[in-house]
Amino acid sequence: MTSFFSEEQSADAVNARMGKDVDPRLKTVMSALVHHLHAFVKEVELTEDEWERAISFLTATGQMCDEQRQEYILLSDVLGASMLVDAINNRRPEGATESTVFGPFHVENAPVRKMGDCISLDGKGESCLFEGRITDLDGTPISNAKIDVWADNAEGFYDVQQPGHQPKWNNRGIFVTGDDGAYCFVGSKPVSYPIPDDGPVGKMLFLLGRHPFRPAHMHFMITAPGYQKLVTHTFVDGDEYLTSDTVFGVKQSLIAPFEKTENGTPVWKSSFDFVLAPATPPNNPA
Amino acid sequence: MTSFFSEEQSADAVNARMGKDVDPRLKTVMSALVHHLHAFVKEVELTEDEWERAISFLTATGQMCDEQRQEYILLSDVLGASMLVDAINNRRPEGATESTVFGPFHVENAPVRKMGDCISLDGKGESCLFEGRITDLDGTPISNAKIDVWADNAEGFYDVQQPGHQPKWNNRGIFVTGDDGAYCFVGSKPVSYPIPDDGPVGKMLFLLGRHPFRPAHMHFMITAPGYQKLVTHTFVDGDEYLTSDTVFGVKQSLIAPFEKTENGTPVWKSSFDFVLAPATPPNNPA
Repeated sequence: MTSFFSEEQSADAVNARMGKDVDPRLKTVMSALVHHLHAFVKEVELTEDEWERAISFLTATGQMCDEQRQEYILLSDVLGASMLVDAINNRRPEGATESTVFGPFHVENAPVRKMGDCISLDGKGESCLFEGRITDLDGTPISNAKIDVWADNAEGFYDVQQPGHQPKWNNRGIFVTGDDGAYCFVGSKPVSYPIPDDGPVGKMLFLLGRHPFRPAHMHFMITAPGYQKLVTHTFVDGDEYLTSDTVFGVKQSLIAPFEKTENGTPVWKSSFDFVLAPATPPNNPA
Repeated sequence: MTSFFSEEQSADAVNARMGKDVDPRLKTVMSALVHHLHAFVKEVELTEDEWERAISFLTATGQMCDEQRQEYILLSDVLGASMLVDAINNRRPEGATESTVFGPFHVENAPVRKMGDCISLDGKGESCLFEGRITDLDGTPISNAKIDVWADNAEGFYDVQQPGHQPKWNNRGIFVTGDDGAYCFVGSKPVSYPIPDDGPVGKMLFLLGRHPFRPAHMHFMITAPGYQKLVTHTFVDGDEYLTSDTVFGVKQSLIAPFEKTENGTPVWKSSFDFVLAPATPPNNPA
């Protein structure tokens, strides 16, 4: 007796079709995907009209993507999926600096700068000294740590969003630590900005009563031989969007002090130390 | 104390962001979607590489769509989601003919034909007489029922897939019943065919060890005043893909007899009666 598709065993009917020689991991992932997809449709009793709207939304989201724009990453971001994947894949031992989303605006091979250099090439906004140390879990300074930083300018745009308007490599740079593990550079104080919201994801946010803003932050990607790569941000303490980051990137431990300096040059100072986990952390269950 | 996003309460953190004035149904659907999406990511512990592949797949699927091609409907079909939505929204009382997927090849406003007319305009394939009756649950004939039929030609393509190559309205037509509720028309015996498999969905099917074929079928959409619209197929009994329809459309009750006629004109005969449910069925829990 052949068992055809039915509402009751719908997911099993689909998964039973997979071939015997399918990659085991693909089988695991797709089986779980089908089960959760069907459970969702059943739970809400999705109507045919809603199904059509879902098809249209998914299609439009794909068609919004081009070389400069990745609408599906935005969708993953605003649904918290990006942060969840980050959390699952970056469990770290107690005391190590936490990670957050990579984001779409990193550019490979930024210029290597000298400690103390200024990365704000357009000179806009309020200047800020970023400084601190890179250490291991015991507080020992890490030398030869590569610190890749990037941020928006005072208008809320990354250089790659405004080619021709901003100088190339504006608010980007790579710094390498010496024996003291210390870093310092001057940039402009980051400002909060909306993610691109003129596409399907922006419309969805609007219908959900959500704003598209990210709180002001400086991106850091820190690598050092023998240590786990750290992709994170420091967030500007006091930013109005700290508790409502549209991509859910904020963690309490990543909120950094931004204090006015006494002499006003630079105008602000933000001190933040980063603690790297060993490359094969003894306490990581993964 | 603000509660930021964490792996443990990730879905709740996302859903807590929805505004107070959100459409209640949208809130229900999106909350469930976020919960199931996060449960899926957690269950399989999706890696960052797998996440990137998912983003690429979803993007490519959207970009495959155009006026003639809807790759997201194909994706929904091969994952069983289309049939599940159909099942949930078309529960019928015992005895009524079951529904199945609408599919992407229906065209509005096909020519109205007289009973007995031939809809195979290219004359290809083996001729087949389709005949039967439209009745209510008690077996009473339904007059003025509109029967919209469509099928592929002997080469496995619908006319809209081969504009210029097939005559317009090839293997399509609308028939209206008289007092006896009877219908009959001549077409070509449908053949099995692969769904378009040169895009991302076809690649996925290949990786899952699945074929892209649908068993041979004739589409029927039947409407009559006072009755629930019926969108269904009859499947050609004996087709090799009956138990492995790539879109899961087959139901036991929809497999129709196709028998050789004695005089060979037409070559085949398929008798099938359709039973319509009342527009507000007394036993439908929805």
